[in-house]
Amino acid sequence: MALEGRFDDGVVRVGSDARQRYHDSRGYGYPLEGNEIALAPVEAAHLLYRGDLEAVVDNDGERLGFREFIAREPGDDFGVRFLVYADLRSRGFYLSPAAEPWISDPPGGAADFAVFPRGKGPGDGEIAYALRIIGERTDVPANELAEGVLAVVDEESEITYFEVGTRDPSGTSNSGTALPDGCEADLLADRVVVWEPPLELYEESFYGQPLEGREYDEPTLQCSLLEAAYLAERGAVDLDPETVRERGREVEGERFNRRLTVYTALRERGVVPKTGYKFGADFRTYADVDSVEDLGHSELLVRVHPADYVFEPRDLALDVRLAHGVRKTMVFALVDGTGDVEWWSLERLTP
Amino acid sequence: MALEGRFDDGVVRVGSDARQRYHDSRGYGYPLEGNEIALAPVEAAHLLYRGDLEAVVDNDGERLGFREFIAREPGDDFGVRFLVYADLRSRGFYLSPAAEPWISDPPGGAADFAVFPRGKGPGDGEIAYALRIIGERTDVPANELAEGVLAVVDEESEITYFEVGTRDPSGTSNSGTALPDGCEADLLADRVVVWEPPLELYEESFYGQPLEGREYDEPTLQCSLLEAAYLAERGAVDLDPETVRERGREVEGERFNRRLTVYTALRERGVVPKTGYKFGADFRTYADVDSVEDLGHSELLVRVHPADYVFEPRDLALDVRLAHGVRKTMVFALVDGTGDVEWWSLERLTP
Repeated sequence: MALEGRFDDGVVRVGSDARQRYHDSRGYGYPLEGNEIALAPVEAAHLLYRGDLEAVVDNDGERLGFREFIAREPGDDFGVRFLVYADLRSRGFYLSPAAEPWISDPPGGAADFAVFPRGKGPGDGEIAYALRIIGERTDVPANELAEGVLAVVDEESEITYFEVGTRDPSGTSNSGTALPDGCEADLLADRVVVWEPPLELYEESFYGQPLEGREYDEPTLQCSLLEAAYLAERGAVDLDPETVRERGREVEGERFNRRLTVYTALRERGVVPKTGYKFGADFRTYADVDSVEDLGHSELLVRVHPADYVFEPRDLALDVRLAHGVRKTMVFALVDGTGDVEWWSLERLTP
Repeated sequence: MALEGRFDDGVVRVGSDARQRYHDSRGYGYPLEGNEIALAPVEAAHLLYRGDLEAVVDNDGERLGFREFIAREPGDDFGVRFLVYADLRSRGFYLSPAAEPWISDPPGGAADFAVFPRGKGPGDGEIAYALRIIGERTDVPANELAEGVLAVVDEESEITYFEVGTRDPSGTSNSGTALPDGCEADLLADRVVVWEPPLELYEESFYGQPLEGREYDEPTLQCSLLEAAYLAERGAVDLDPETVRERGREVEGERFNRRLTVYTALRERGVVPKTGYKFGADFRTYADVDSVEDLGHSELLVRVHPADYVFEPRDLALDVRLAHGVRKTMVFALVDGTGDVEWWSLERLTP
C-alpha cells in the first residue's frame, strides 16, 4: 500500500514503514525519530512519480499527487534536479543531496548530489561523483569549476554529463634545447617568414610550417606571430620580441598575451602547441614529438580564457562534442592577471 | 631564361615573350600593348616563387627577388592572398583577380578571385568559384555573406575552404494539421509539462519529449518553452501564449524571440526543429517526419543570429567542423527586425 507524506519545513516527512521501505533498502532520505524519514522534494517527487508515495499533504492540508507536486516546483532548479535524479536512478545509481544529514562529510563547493558507485548506497561511505546540475541557460563562472560531474539539462530535458577535472599537460617534446641563433626573418602583416632556418627547427621541434616547393636546400618556414614571439624572445630569430608582440596585439587584442602565456607554459612542459583554428580552439597539442615525420595525432584541444571568464553551457557542449568527435580531450587554460595558468579538462561521461 | 618585371602603378609589367609564356599558356595577368602583360602583385610573387621571374624592379630601380618582394607586402592582405593563390595553383586551378581587365564580367561583392574549372582558364568564360580570402582574425558581417567560396587562412598558413550558399529548408513533416485543442499543461521555471496529450502530438508530429516510466495510458510530455509557445499560440495547450513567451524571454533574453521566429518558419515549411543543444546549435532539424519510430538522422544544424551579426572565422570553423563530423549541414538563420529570415549554409570544401 502506498504511503502519504507531509510537507514540513522544506522536507517531506513519511511515517509508517517508510524508513525500512524507502531509506534502508532504497537509499531515499534520512531517518528521523521513530520510523519516520525526511525526504528532499526531489526524492519525494520521485517516489510520487513511481507510485510509491500516493500523495504529499501540504501545509494547508491539500493532497498533492505527482502532477500537483511538480507544478509547485518546491525548491530552486526543481525541474532540472528532478530530471537528473530520475535519470540516474533509472541507470541504477543511488544518490543523495550533497548535504548533511543525508550524508556525513558531504563534498563541498557547488555539488548538488553525491552519487554512489553502482551497488553502493548512502551508508557505504564511498562517493563516485560529486554532481552539480544546471539548465543549459545557466552561466558557469570559471572560478566555480570543480572536480566532479556537471549535468546539463537542455530545453527538451535531455541530459549531458561532463566529467570535470584539473589537468596537468606534460610531454617529452624537444622544445628548446636546440634552438638556432638569430635566423633571418621578416615580419609580415599577420605572420612571420623565417628564411633558411636549420632543418631541425621544423623537423624536430615542430616550429612553423614550411612553404612548399622552394628551390633551396633549407625550407622557408612560415610562423604564426605567437611562435615568432616565442622564438624572438629566445633569440632564435632576428626580430625584436616586443615588435612581434605588438603586432600580435594589433591583430588579436588582449587574447594574444594570454595565448602567448599558455603557449610558453606548454612549451616549457615539453608539449608542442600548434594552432587549433580548424577545430575552433586556440591550440591542438602534441605531447611527444620526436620528429615531424613520425607525428601522431594531437591529444588535446586547448582553449584559452581569462580567469574571470564565464562559460555558457552551450559553448561547453560544442567544444566538448567536437573534441570527442576528433578523439581529443578538451582542455581549458585559465590565465589570471599575474600570468598563472589553471588547466581544466572536460569530457563527456556516460554514467 | 627567366624574365624580369617592373613595378608600375600597382601592377608588375613584364615584356619579352611574357605574354605567350605566362598569359596565353598559363593564365597569368592580362595583356598590354605589344607583348607586355600586367600582373597583379600576387601573380608576380608566384612567378618569382617558382623561379619563372628572376626579379621585379621597383620604382627606385632596386631588383627584388622573392624574399624582398614578399617583405614589401604589396597590397592589402597580400600574405593570405598569396598563400591561397599558391595553394589553388598547386591543386591545378587557374585563377585571376576578380576584376577587369583580368576577366570580363567579374563576380561582384567581396570576391577577390575568380577560380576557373580545372582545365579551363580566364578566357573560357566559365567560373567555378567566386573566391573571397580572409585571415582567421578578419570579422565577416552577416550582410557580407555571398554565394561562393570563402578561404580562411589560419595563423599557421593552413587554408580552410568553405562553400557558402543560400539555403531554403523545406520538408514534408506534419506540423500542424493534427494539433490537439487545449491540452492541460503546466508552465515550470524553464520548461512546460503537457499532461496526457494525444499520442500523435509526439509520435507523429514530434513535439516534446516523453517523461519515461509513467503509469498512464497517454504519455506525459515535456516541452521546451519554444515548443510550448508555438503550441500555445495555436491553442493546442491551455497556456496563455504571451505568458509562455515572457517566460522564454526571462530565461533566454532576446534570443528567444529570434528562435521562436525561426522555429515557426521551419514548422511552416514542413521541417521539425528540435533542440540543437548537444551540438552547440539552436536546432537540429528533420525534414520528413512521418513517425518518431522511423526517425532518421537530422539533416541540418541551425544557428540563429540577428541580421546584423558579425561572424568570427574561428566560430565558423567550429560550427562547420562539428556539423561535418556528425554528417549534417550547418545553416545560419539570420533574423532581421521585421521577422524575416535569411538562410545560409556553410560547408567545408576541398577544391
